[in-house]
Amino acid sequence: MKFGGTSMAGIERIRHVAALVKREADRGNQVAVVVSAMAGETDRLVQMCREAAPLYDPREYDVVVASGEQVTSGLLAITLTGMGLNARSYMGWQLPIRASGHSSALIDHIEASILEGVFEKGGIAVIPGFQGVTPEGDLATLGRGGSDTSAVALAVAVEADRCDIYTDVEGVFTTDPRIVPRARKLEAITYEEMLELASVGAKVLQTRSVGLAMRYNMPLQVLSSFEDQPGTLIVGDEKIEELHMERQLVTGIAHDKNEARITLTGLPDKPGTVAAIFAPLAEANVNVDMIVQSGRAGETSDLTFTVPTAALAHSVAALEKAKAAIGFAAIVTDTNVVKISAVGIGMRSNAGIAAKMFETLAERGINILAISTSEIKVSVLVPEDYTELAVRVLHTAFGLDAKEAA
Amino acid sequence: MKFGGTSMAGIERIRHVAALVKREADRGNQVAVVVSAMAGETDRLVQMCREAAPLYDPREYDVVVASGEQVTSGLLAITLTGMGLNARSYMGWQLPIRASGHSSALIDHIEASILEGVFEKGGIAVIPGFQGVTPEGDLATLGRGGSDTSAVALAVAVEADRCDIYTDVEGVFTTDPRIVPRARKLEAITYEEMLELASVGAKVLQTRSVGLAMRYNMPLQVLSSFEDQPGTLIVGDEKIEELHMERQLVTGIAHDKNEARITLTGLPDKPGTVAAIFAPLAEANVNVDMIVQSGRAGETSDLTFTVPTAALAHSVAALEKAKAAIGFAAIVTDTNVVKISAVGIGMRSNAGIAAKMFETLAERGINILAISTSEIKVSVLVPEDYTELAVRVLHTAFGLDAKEAA
Repeated sequence: MKFGGTSMAGIERIRHVAALVKREADRGNQVAVVVSAMAGETDRLVQMCREAAPLYDPREYDVVVASGEQVTSGLLAITLTGMGLNARSYMGWQLPIRASGHSSALIDHIEASILEGVFEKGGIAVIPGFQGVTPEGDLATLGRGGSDTSAVALAVAVEADRCDIYTDVEGVFTTDPRIVPRARKLEAITYEEMLELASVGAKVLQTRSVGLAMRYNMPLQVLSSFEDQPGTLIVGDEKIEELHMERQLVTGIAHDKNEARITLTGLPDKPGTVAAIFAPLAEANVNVDMIVQSGRAGETSDLTFTVPTAALAHSVAALEKAKAAIGFAAIVTDTNVVKISAVGIGMRSNAGIAAKMFETLAERGINILAISTSEIKVSVLVPEDYTELAVRVLHTAFGLDAKEAA
Repeated sequence: MKFGGTSMAGIERIRHVAALVKREADRGNQVAVVVSAMAGETDRLVQMCREAAPLYDPREYDVVVASGEQVTSGLLAITLTGMGLNARSYMGWQLPIRASGHSSALIDHIEASILEGVFEKGGIAVIPGFQGVTPEGDLATLGRGGSDTSAVALAVAVEADRCDIYTDVEGVFTTDPRIVPRARKLEAITYEEMLELASVGAKVLQTRSVGLAMRYNMPLQVLSSFEDQPGTLIVGDEKIEELHMERQLVTGIAHDKNEARITLTGLPDKPGTVAAIFAPLAEANVNVDMIVQSGRAGETSDLTFTVPTAALAHSVAALEKAKAAIGFAAIVTDTNVVKISAVGIGMRSNAGIAAKMFETLAERGINILAISTSEIKVSVLVPEDYTELAVRVLHTAFGLDAKEAA
């Protein structure tokens, strides 16, 4: 069981978490609990590090920031023992959880022997998420959101039946319920679909944690710590077959406003132009996404592509610097765009999804500025003003609307 | 160098502490710094533990509460590295600082090898006070105020020349300057005098830390982190001789309002009565202090003694329970009393101190309710209303007044 910062924000909520843990233990389950810091606490600690020195030492940053989860694991263990349960907290350095280095470290290995000993004695282990110990024996943190990854890695280490990620949402929805009131909570979704949804803006779980679960085929469940009902299972494709769960061609519609469009005009028609454009961007560590080239052979052409909004200024600077080598006429940028994506494992065996998507948007007069596809995802770039309309019509077109509004 | 919670309260103050550390390092000193949690932080953490479960698990309490010093040591190390110094924090479990058990643990041993390595490379070590690791490898805390003890133990472990305790006062004064504006800061004081002063209400240093320093003859200095001037040295008697420092018969006048007076009236004149009174109090773990018996042989008598105010209710209950065995007529209690003490190593060779004290108080019409003495201390119990007057007249009588008011 993993509980996020909102679930751990204050003693009242920790008491509620303890009741959920007790319920699982009472059902005869062996339970390890991974906890985040109280909501806002990590930000507060990071802020203090920045104030102490803008280019803070990463080793010492980890010492400061790891304290947030230390506090919540101790408090949860106190609450559980206060309820008569045999609960103990174990810090990352105690188990140990071996991490690769400082801030944003990866987990190299989790030693399961202490936890197995706890389970044998019918105990409950509480573990601070987001942290481990470096090869030098120093405190390490896993980078923001790392508690989900801690939970999955720990579940793998103790060969758990399932890793339940409790959060402040009820599960994974077919789309953002704030845009489409008839959005449905999904009963189950594959790891790949979840990864694609996460990559286009559906921030339910940290991407790294889903990738890790997929690698070890560890079943995940995303569920609410505030609502007493099942969440969404995130499992392998074969597991969904096994459970005879509902399947749909498209599982969800996501939108991502963190994309900016860059167009280079008047590009010369000569070999090596595209390489000359993307080489400086790669060097500047910018992820280029949707790419559209327009123009005819023998004439100058335009090239349009998207980058994360946060990398826009950076990208333009890199391109301006390479202007002579590329030979473009002008750079045109646009941040008023949104990427709308349809994700579904059913696309693998059904070629009509992209066509249906373009048709549906065209019917409403929505102009498609760029397209990109992966095996189980079709993304289109449209003007930002059309975000809600586009999401709604696609949600309906792919048969995702619930019978009633939530 | 040890810095208390007020000195560590916020990044601005931590920056100031870093400047003081840098100054010592620039002077060519090898420096280890012990830090407390930010002022108020330990109280906040303790409060959360209590809310989680009133009878909190001590092992988990330590996990929660140890985080306060972890944060400040990381922040100080960040600040120092940001200033270009080679500084690193080492947690209690890393060195390790071996502690006897959970909450209010004693320090069993400090392994100095990591610190010696740091000094050899010209580095600065920052160590969270108040914590260590249990024989089982769990986090331990040393009990409130334990950071002073950590600092002294660490100084002993690395064979330091001196342990400087930075605080929010300028040093040890001849008496409370809020009562006597002409109180003087002492240049030096012996361990024993400091212990006696602490036992009667002068809370500058944690008693345990002074006892430890005395045992290993580690020179202490109490000084202000806000004022740039020498503080008070706390050393062995021979060191004061050596330094040709000023000596006085009486070093300081302290007062302690945390005393309550209990009088048992109508006690039978038979053997074993006194034992019957103090046995139940000892069992209830109450420290009995000043004892006065009045009455004549063959008649009933009264017995008066003091206990800490916090133990008064507790003590009365224990006595009431033993009423039949003791055979007293009534219990009379009084919390409106104060213990005034004169402390000075000079008393050892001068018998006139007590007499002068009684005389001085009598001249002002101050009624002495009880008396207790030790080798280097005379204490009297007087009505609380006379606190300031008694302290002032004794301060003057023993020649402690400064030439000018501070």
